[in-house]
Amino acid sequence: MSAHSWIAVDWGTTHLRAFAMDGRSVVAQFSSDRGMGTLSASEFENALLDVIGPWLDRPTPVLACGMVGSRQGWVEARYLPVPCKPLSESFTEAPTKDTRLRVWIVPGLSQASPPDVMRGEETQIAGFLSLNPGWDGVICLPGSHTKWAHISAGEVISFQTVMTGEMLAALSGSTVLRHSMAPTGWDEKVFLDTLDQTRSRPETLATQLFRTRATDLLHGLDPVAARSRIIGALIGAELAATRPYWLGQPIAVIGATEPSRGYLAGLRAQGAAPIEADGDAMTRAGLSVAHSKLMETA
Amino acid sequence: MSAHSWIAVDWGTTHLRAFAMDGRSVVAQFSSDRGMGTLSASEFENALLDVIGPWLDRPTPVLACGMVGSRQGWVEARYLPVPCKPLSESFTEAPTKDTRLRVWIVPGLSQASPPDVMRGEETQIAGFLSLNPGWDGVICLPGSHTKWAHISAGEVISFQTVMTGEMLAALSGSTVLRHSMAPTGWDEKVFLDTLDQTRSRPETLATQLFRTRATDLLHGLDPVAARSRIIGALIGAELAATRPYWLGQPIAVIGATEPSRGYLAGLRAQGAAPIEADGDAMTRAGLSVAHSKLMETA
Repeated sequence: MSAHSWIAVDWGTTHLRAFAMDGRSVVAQFSSDRGMGTLSASEFENALLDVIGPWLDRPTPVLACGMVGSRQGWVEARYLPVPCKPLSESFTEAPTKDTRLRVWIVPGLSQASPPDVMRGEETQIAGFLSLNPGWDGVICLPGSHTKWAHISAGEVISFQTVMTGEMLAALSGSTVLRHSMAPTGWDEKVFLDTLDQTRSRPETLATQLFRTRATDLLHGLDPVAARSRIIGALIGAELAATRPYWLGQPIAVIGATEPSRGYLAGLRAQGAAPIEADGDAMTRAGLSVAHSKLMETA
Repeated sequence: MSAHSWIAVDWGTTHLRAFAMDGRSVVAQFSSDRGMGTLSASEFENALLDVIGPWLDRPTPVLACGMVGSRQGWVEARYLPVPCKPLSESFTEAPTKDTRLRVWIVPGLSQASPPDVMRGEETQIAGFLSLNPGWDGVICLPGSHTKWAHISAGEVISFQTVMTGEMLAALSGSTVLRHSMAPTGWDEKVFLDTLDQTRSRPETLATQLFRTRATDLLHGLDPVAARSRIIGALIGAELAATRPYWLGQPIAVIGATEPSRGYLAGLRAQGAAPIEADGDAMTRAGLSVAHSKLMETA
């Protein structure tokens, strides 16, 4: 059918995105909601074949990243300990029955002290560094588990994870705050005002949360403003926690528009000048790096 | 049947507890899981009759506190603005069909700035003050929404709410931390170690949470230790936020054993000497105060 020579797969907890690739170019793409979290180990091959089957007119190498390589995934891929170059070795081949399939999962990164892990973001970092060779600084990857990685000479020196996205989902999904918060929407002034409070006094996060609910009960509060306030309080506390990372450093924010927006606005309000890169594009660029490496060693 | 003269009802979001009272003494008690959160406005009377019906051999006054008086409750009871004596006025009568029933709901407390509200804890505070006349200091009421109230000359001067309990429930119920945390259990050393970190550097709460998960993934972590660590991180951040309240003050912790334990241990580790009081007993003492007031004005 198409001119593709390999397949890139971004396989997280809640989604599966596959791209038929010709070198670094996308020829076709398809996605499904059969994320790692919905599958047992024996179901991964069929879930993948359902998506990429039409592209398998011949044996085609597949490079995958994300939670597919976790202990609850298809096969557990290694963590490379930092400091190291991301994706620099040790792809793990997943067990397959279909002879047209060979699937390699790239390694995540681990840090011994303080303990931390990542799976998926290392591929975006590798992609960003392949497109911006020689770039040194701090990369912020907003998401359920936002990662902050210190980059020097092409290596991840250290990183840390803040569960801001998952905390927001938990607060807006299963606490009393859900009655006051809109599911979407953005009020940047409210966001920045609240961010400034928890950034300068992070201990106030604890009191800001219920205060948002009480303000709504006593005076009424626009649900979009309430949402912007909660996100501002969380990201403000995160910027306080990660200040030793980003202060005075070149900063790149890699991600989708929605989770990145608050980080970009917040960092800019603190006098930083972050550059932006699209998360999906960086994932594909990173898997392209992995594919090239695989071809070299094959 | 019994010698009771009135009925005390503690009616929260998730539970309903009723006590047949003779003056300040409990003659009989019964509880159900038909909390405010499970009922629409028209269902409260029958839910109450299911529990206290057997006690209604004659018309009997019922004094109730808690979320039964919220906007989503039986009838919305007032908030008294602080500073004020809790339960000092304005009981709200709930609409009833059964002529044996007269139900009064006590008022909550509100604070204009910073905005805050409470419903239920004001009754425990009133009960504690009736049993400890002249006591001045700070009362901590641990729970889903922990309250800190500054008491002077029998009045609540100000208060603030921290959603530590609900945050713990959200983190342990619907985030990746649930894979690493035991549902119960206690390791006080781990708790105090983590508490000390977020108490002195509250911004590190953001990084402590995922670090607990990563420690488990990389090195293995006892699920009880993980739970104690998360609770320590949350209460440590709360003690940092509320330090202007409790530092150098007499402190009373009012609540059930489980949520109070961490607050007592944490405050003691900070050099404070909190006294303890049982939450249910304080609720009944507070409703007794309300009943006496009602009798005076009747």
